Amino acid sequence: MAEFSLIETIRERCAVARDDVRLGIGDDGAVLAVPIGHELVVSTDTLVAGVHFPLQTAPFDIGWKALAVNLSDLAAMGANPAWATLALTLPSADAPWVEKFADGFAALAREHQLALVGGDTTRGPLSITITVFGFVPAGAAVTRAGAKAGDWICVTGTLGDAAAGLACVLACEDGADELIGRLNRPAPRIAAGLLLREVASAAIDISDGLLADLGHICARSGVGAEVCVDDLPMSEAFGEYADAPTRQRLQLAGGDDYELCFSVQPDRAPALLWDLAQSGCAATRIGQIVVGREIMLTDDSGAQIEMPLRGWEHFA
Amino acid sequence: MAEFSLIETIRERCAVARDDVRLGIGDDGAVLAVPIGHELVVSTDTLVAGVHFPLQTAPFDIGWKALAVNLSDLAAMGANPAWATLALTLPSADAPWVEKFADGFAALAREHQLALVGGDTTRGPLSITITVFGFVPAGAAVTRAGAKAGDWICVTGTLGDAAAGLACVLACEDGADELIGRLNRPAPRIAAGLLLREVASAAIDISDGLLADLGHICARSGVGAEVCVDDLPMSEAFGEYADAPTRQRLQLAGGDDYELCFSVQPDRAPALLWDLAQSGCAATRIGQIVVGREIMLTDDSGAQIEMPLRGWEHFA
Repeated sequence: MAEFSLIETIRERCAVARDDVRLGIGDDGAVLAVPIGHELVVSTDTLVAGVHFPLQTAPFDIGWKALAVNLSDLAAMGANPAWATLALTLPSADAPWVEKFADGFAALAREHQLALVGGDTTRGPLSITITVFGFVPAGAAVTRAGAKAGDWICVTGTLGDAAAGLACVLACEDGADELIGRLNRPAPRIAAGLLLREVASAAIDISDGLLADLGHICARSGVGAEVCVDDLPMSEAFGEYADAPTRQRLQLAGGDDYELCFSVQPDRAPALLWDLAQSGCAATRIGQIVVGREIMLTDDSGAQIEMPLRGWEHFA
Repeated sequence: MAEFSLIETIRERCAVARDDVRLGIGDDGAVLAVPIGHELVVSTDTLVAGVHFPLQTAPFDIGWKALAVNLSDLAAMGANPAWATLALTLPSADAPWVEKFADGFAALAREHQLALVGGDTTRGPLSITITVFGFVPAGAAVTRAGAKAGDWICVTGTLGDAAAGLACVLACEDGADELIGRLNRPAPRIAAGLLLREVASAAIDISDGLLADLGHICARSGVGAEVCVDDLPMSEAFGEYADAPTRQRLQLAGGDDYELCFSVQPDRAPALLWDLAQSGCAATRIGQIVVGREIMLTDDSGAQIEMPLRGWEHFA
């Protein structure tokens, strides 16, 4: 399979028509039109085999996940997805692998009317870099920087599932399909992100674990946080997965769930949580923003608890 | 060196201020404003160590070249560079290496007032994926698709230098600084690309060799081409490098010079060539677009010559 038929395979399987793509794949660059009154939101993520996904991950899931982790960043900014570029480095031009990879990418791209507008294919150790492009009305992007003391801290969905799924994969455990599904096919919270726009004071997606990512909001906003570990939302499958200390560790420091963590003023919170629940992506209050710089953990009784944890860091 | 100090190192060294960057590095995504009446041109290229550059290449040169090959694609579209994202995969967080790499990237970025707006750093085999963003007035992008029979075919600068430089590097030959310089620090022809806008009928950058890249223009435009091998422009250093058959092979099928190959109507050609020469990036006529689909090679006397060559292809 030559380079150009490889590109053709990807292009065919990922075709999504959009009027704002003036020129798509096939030239030196794509030509794209951003709607008037809107700003462009851009995010890039690389997935390296064996680092960001286990080597045995199915190619469909790799394609899905590589796009999902990028779309999750758009969700956290409150952006509407529009386009993506795909840089694919492969050890060899394995046609069935590429077809399944493209199908996984395309399945998620179609869900979000996202057009693949360019990319590159090169030979080398398996790795995937995707850049995604979305729109926000000018000035409306949600950032990490607006959280204020007194704001509620909330998260969408449930936490810990993907980290538990990874543990199951690595232990070759059966019967954890739901948890492994969360690991392999995360659902970027695009619709939730749109609801956060002009309501949330700050937002981030949870890719490296709640403590690490909430820590970014605190650092950028110049605030601290109090999180009640007993309020962290969990799925039924996750609740059955392990003992309480293990679960807490995964919920606080496991990553890869790609849920949104956001802050919102108390008077705006109930309506937002209602809207999110109506949209099919319920969110849960897990604590509040406080004066200071630290993240404190408490339990149900309000007692402070110690847990020296942090999230995932490359090169740490 | 932890991931976040690595990002900070890159950010500090690559700082270029632009008003249209509403939010730069440090959030889930960058927020960017495209000027009204303009379209966005986007291109992505990956460089893999040992594939796109010899393993012994200096980190400064790798940083420069990774950006240059992307800017070259913007040049071929007639776009003005604005922003870039950088996805850097590294075997280890080697601070001096990263500093020199960032300096190489930054040196070229500053020349073009290009702002680094986002990226990702991951651990893995060395590879660099850059996505660049530029602007063109709406509808003004130069594509590969407009060449017509009778058009002149021209190339900027000289051909073959980088391929000769690579041969010198691989043979550990001394005294070929100029040729190796062309290999390691290509100059993207941005100013030339702006002159081509609204004048050239088609353009491409020569990354995979003249025959391969001119072949893309022919395929997209539905035309053929006649190229006179004796008219291919060469530098003095290249002229002294090897015998004529070797030089011809490198000029036709060697890549990495990142010159522009373009077609232009005969009545518009002289003024364009004059303007290019005045801008400091002279171009040379090397042949003409013809009816058909093939690229024919001739010599000075007009006799057709056979040379079964093609350009670089991954997975070939």
